[in-house]
Amino acid sequence: MSVTIGVDLGGTNIVCGAVDETGSVLRKLKQPTEAHLGHSDVLGRIAAMVQSIRKELAGEHEVSSVGVGVPGLVDPQAGISRFAGNLKWHDVPVAAELESRLGIPVYIDNDVRLYIYGEAVAGAGRGFDHILGITIGTGIAAAIMIEGQFHYGYKAMAGEIGHVRMEGVEEACSCGLYGCLETVASASGMVRQARKAIQEGRKSVLADWYPSESLHLLTAADLSKAMDQGDSLATEILTRAGALNGRALAAAATVLSPEIIIVGGGGALAGERILAPLRKELYELLLPDFREGLKVVAAENNDDAGIIGSALFARHRLLS
Amino acid sequence: MSVTIGVDLGGTNIVCGAVDETGSVLRKLKQPTEAHLGHSDVLGRIAAMVQSIRKELAGEHEVSSVGVGVPGLVDPQAGISRFAGNLKWHDVPVAAELESRLGIPVYIDNDVRLYIYGEAVAGAGRGFDHILGITIGTGIAAAIMIEGQFHYGYKAMAGEIGHVRMEGVEEACSCGLYGCLETVASASGMVRQARKAIQEGRKSVLADWYPSESLHLLTAADLSKAMDQGDSLATEILTRAGALNGRALAAAATVLSPEIIIVGGGGALAGERILAPLRKELYELLLPDFREGLKVVAAENNDDAGIIGSALFARHRLLS
Repeated sequence: MSVTIGVDLGGTNIVCGAVDETGSVLRKLKQPTEAHLGHSDVLGRIAAMVQSIRKELAGEHEVSSVGVGVPGLVDPQAGISRFAGNLKWHDVPVAAELESRLGIPVYIDNDVRLYIYGEAVAGAGRGFDHILGITIGTGIAAAIMIEGQFHYGYKAMAGEIGHVRMEGVEEACSCGLYGCLETVASASGMVRQARKAIQEGRKSVLADWYPSESLHLLTAADLSKAMDQGDSLATEILTRAGALNGRALAAAATVLSPEIIIVGGGGALAGERILAPLRKELYELLLPDFREGLKVVAAENNDDAGIIGSALFARHRLLS
Repeated sequence: MSVTIGVDLGGTNIVCGAVDETGSVLRKLKQPTEAHLGHSDVLGRIAAMVQSIRKELAGEHEVSSVGVGVPGLVDPQAGISRFAGNLKWHDVPVAAELESRLGIPVYIDNDVRLYIYGEAVAGAGRGFDHILGITIGTGIAAAIMIEGQFHYGYKAMAGEIGHVRMEGVEEACSCGLYGCLETVASASGMVRQARKAIQEGRKSVLADWYPSESLHLLTAADLSKAMDQGDSLATEILTRAGALNGRALAAAATVLSPEIIIVGGGGALAGERILAPLRKELYELLLPDFREGLKVVAAENNDDAGIIGSALFARHRLLS
């Protein structure tokens, strides 16, 4: 049987996985990205991981193509990473370089779009024609899929919902603007707020778990644990992040009219702790016609959504 | 030569026009809508107007199809007006009823989408693939066109930007929500604010032009005239409306990545008085990558945009 390999290229890790046509992951490899070694080195490592999986599967499955989810600004037609801040990449011909090393077709697209692609065809979005996906992770980004097609926008830049200005948010954003949604409502934004509050003397079980010298070890998962113990700081931060995501999604949904909103990314592992306030704010701000039909659900494939989406996208591109 | 007839069905007037393939208006008729007489009466009047134009053009031009821009929620595939508040229409089979009276194909769509369609193919949007259009009139609504295709959204409800909640706006909206963009930034919202301020004793040339008994005659055009004379109330209202539209458009553009934003509708007749503050706010809130490429322009066809768009849309649907 023919399988495709999906690559989830992150700032910290590269994950490669062989995926069958149903979206099941057959083999998976993970290695650190080590972006500081340069793009040739990173692409060489991806190629080696793909070859290693191909070798493992030899005789059993043939690998027909590879899909790579690349962070940042991507030109999917040209197969070029235009700009990826966390990798320090600028105009890297990802598809061409990998194709020359692998000898099979390689397709790339923005990582969030491919994450949501995986949800659309083999996850929470199955059967829906109008999908708005959002990933809450280091940053916050969205992807729009209409009847199986991405809405790319001019220069394939659509989806930067993390940089919508939110009233009442004053934090400076790494993009140069301030008050961007992702400064406080992303997983890293939530962690940053928790650390800051603790440093300023706010009482919290988080302060007990992470005395000052270890405060940098606090993660978004800790916020969920603390909230479950009734911690008011963690509850405030998660609830506010949910509400702010809900507010930004309300504006987007009012313009786009999706049928389903899929919430994924590391931040979505908080589940109802973040989804409940998100839905409350969203529904409160929506016109009745929108409110009635709209579903808001967590992503299904979470950890593997990146490789599943990239692999299924490569299969789709190969056939189209 | 074959022409199509475009119908702009508004709460106050019906405008019908014969339009050639270049978007030029050959004949035009206007009649009051008189929605209170019921939908059969209104559709009968539209049919009579179309027949009258057909007769006038007989021998010279054959009318091949009719396009009707209907306010509110429309099912363009079924040709049904699902809900039009200002007409008090609910599930009116506009296309079928008109076709049975006229004997030629009739296509309908939402009026704002058809307005922007006219701009896209024969106006300010010519040559652009990613268009976000907004009409500032009695309400505020948007239309999204990608490579010549509308983004309809689920139930064809996309584009309700006038009902995005704006922080700092407290006005109740006719939709049941409050703080909606259109409560203060639409043409009627601006007029309402001016009247209210004058009633509360605010000094303004508008108060001299419209003593209390005639205050209901004040229009959006008067605000432009007053602003040109340095009137502070009119300047405040137009500038705030521009900025609020800019803020709502910034959120939409950050998610959609349009190449051009076309601003039309009666409110856009204020020109740079509203476009300058709109652009200022918009560009201030956009990521640099978005800011650099994005054009913001006034609609070109303004008064006739509705009939031009409806007629060209009917031509397009007939051929597709």
